[in-house]
Amino acid sequence: MSSVTSIPRVAITLGDPHGIGPEVVLKSLQDEALRDRIVPILIGSDDVLDAHADVLGIEGMAFRTTEPPVEQAPSQEVAVVDVGENPPLPIEFGEITAGGGALAMRAVETATDACIDGWADAMVTAPLSKEGIARAGYQFPGHTGFIAERTGTSSPVMMMVAGDLRVGLVTVHVPVAEVSQRITKEAVLEKIRVIDRSLRQDFGIAEPHIAVLGLNPHAGDGGVIGTEEIETIAPALEVAHARGFHVDGPYAADGFFATGLDGGHDAVLAMYHDQGLVPFKALAFDRGVNFTAGLPIVRTSPDHGTAFNIAGDGVASAGSMKSAIRLAADVVEQRRTVEMNEGNEEPGKR
Amino acid sequence: MSSVTSIPRVAITLGDPHGIGPEVVLKSLQDEALRDRIVPILIGSDDVLDAHADVLGIEGMAFRTTEPPVEQAPSQEVAVVDVGENPPLPIEFGEITAGGGALAMRAVETATDACIDGWADAMVTAPLSKEGIARAGYQFPGHTGFIAERTGTSSPVMMMVAGDLRVGLVTVHVPVAEVSQRITKEAVLEKIRVIDRSLRQDFGIAEPHIAVLGLNPHAGDGGVIGTEEIETIAPALEVAHARGFHVDGPYAADGFFATGLDGGHDAVLAMYHDQGLVPFKALAFDRGVNFTAGLPIVRTSPDHGTAFNIAGDGVASAGSMKSAIRLAADVVEQRRTVEMNEGNEEPGKR
Repeated sequence: MSSVTSIPRVAITLGDPHGIGPEVVLKSLQDEALRDRIVPILIGSDDVLDAHADVLGIEGMAFRTTEPPVEQAPSQEVAVVDVGENPPLPIEFGEITAGGGALAMRAVETATDACIDGWADAMVTAPLSKEGIARAGYQFPGHTGFIAERTGTSSPVMMMVAGDLRVGLVTVHVPVAEVSQRITKEAVLEKIRVIDRSLRQDFGIAEPHIAVLGLNPHAGDGGVIGTEEIETIAPALEVAHARGFHVDGPYAADGFFATGLDGGHDAVLAMYHDQGLVPFKALAFDRGVNFTAGLPIVRTSPDHGTAFNIAGDGVASAGSMKSAIRLAADVVEQRRTVEMNEGNEEPGKR
Repeated sequence: MSSVTSIPRVAITLGDPHGIGPEVVLKSLQDEALRDRIVPILIGSDDVLDAHADVLGIEGMAFRTTEPPVEQAPSQEVAVVDVGENPPLPIEFGEITAGGGALAMRAVETATDACIDGWADAMVTAPLSKEGIARAGYQFPGHTGFIAERTGTSSPVMMMVAGDLRVGLVTVHVPVAEVSQRITKEAVLEKIRVIDRSLRQDFGIAEPHIAVLGLNPHAGDGGVIGTEEIETIAPALEVAHARGFHVDGPYAADGFFATGLDGGHDAVLAMYHDQGLVPFKALAFDRGVNFTAGLPIVRTSPDHGTAFNIAGDGVASAGSMKSAIRLAADVVEQRRTVEMNEGNEEPGKR
């Protein structure tokens, strides 16, 4: 491994040009400690960067427009891969447009390919607008679904990360009315498998312990408030246990986070979106990262959206984006450690 | 109004004798500031109090066993209404027994009647075991359901309170699979009505603002992740608005608490148990109070359960019980203010 590639090269998409994505990316790169940890490769458009830098009053940041594949050593100049079109897109802060959606989407495609082709070690995605993407004619199943498909991954797991708090989801963008039918023994087991592997490979935890939440209030209260815990989740945990996974549960979700049980586990598996994301965001706002476990490539994103209502105001916090970039670098380095050690260790049992 | 009754007389049930209920009650009464605010009337059993006081090493607290109706002025002695049987129940910390359930249940009955009959101004219920109650032969629909029935209340609302954070629930102990069908326009409207009235009458808020959460992830994301927001919740809010209620929503639950939107509202209406209680407990643990809005009487309880696993260890925190007693006293005083002013104000529009 050359000294050049030992600093993680992180492809960062700018997200929707009319949202806060470019702003939080620019703000993140002004953090010198963070800037020194990575070789950033911005994927988006020069014009968008200029427009946002103007608003923020950022001067003196040096950019170098380049073509993929980017051959990039650490430098004071930040490499920019311009996937914009000619003539440039007019910047309309807060507007949902087909042009904004198309630009954001091309950046995601390019960043994903950068990781697949090996000219980036990780990708970090700034928020885009699903509506903008739709207007641009894309059938977009969300960042995670898109990247999973492009990398041939069958079972990615959305995992929210803030320090030692890691919350994975069995179901994500599913209506509450359909959640119960999606909670199958197989689904729970598969998520446990992916999270366990990610904790080892991506976070360097030798013997991960995973807490699993129940589906219903009070985790069903012995079958009085729903039976999924007894019929599905507990049996899945038994199988997982028999396979050597360290799993506990099913826990009642309300008491779980309140009593700090998350502190005793390396990750928490929630059954549905709000059960995991409501406490996560309440506990970890402004430093939460969306990490996609189970991908061959490394991908993170901040835990917020485009925030069109404050786009162009210069007031967006870059806390979550900084955390996302930092985590991407951490995982790249962790995976390298695992790869380097793999010859020396006995093979894992799974 | 006599000077005697101007200090709120609060009937406090001891809950299950084998749980942490009696312990947190005793600990609360050692808080002198709190002790001075109320005239406590403990409902339970002398033997249970003795057993827990022994464990805690509490000495010098004076009790006076009495018969209902209790005629009680402020005193150094704490009145105890003994609803225990002869011979006394053996105390078995951490055990679920029919005897424990029966004792806890009789205390709830007596405390409710104390409020109905007017020899207590409020009731605070320590936690009991639903299983213990069931073993004692009671068909127990939960504290709230029981008290609502006994007081002839058709539509009580479980509202969690911690300072200015107040979270009400449309559905409570309902399996996730059945939540969607319970979210009707009528149910949402009725909860808004009860919460609005409680905020005025019990919390002294002249023009309450209520935030209403969506049911689905991202509040349905414009109908992409479920349609209840469009078909049920938003129409309910329109009607509520037309009737003069200040309501906002439906909000995506995960962003709502994280971005401090709860701070801009006097109460939040969540659609189901974990959506409201998971963030509430994460944000308010050890000071959260369960307040039953919509009752003719005043009733609060701590937000924790019997905690059989630490019963008798002397380590339980009384934070939530103290908050529950304090809130009961606050609401009694607030209702008195409203009653005193009612002759002077024009009648409310609802």
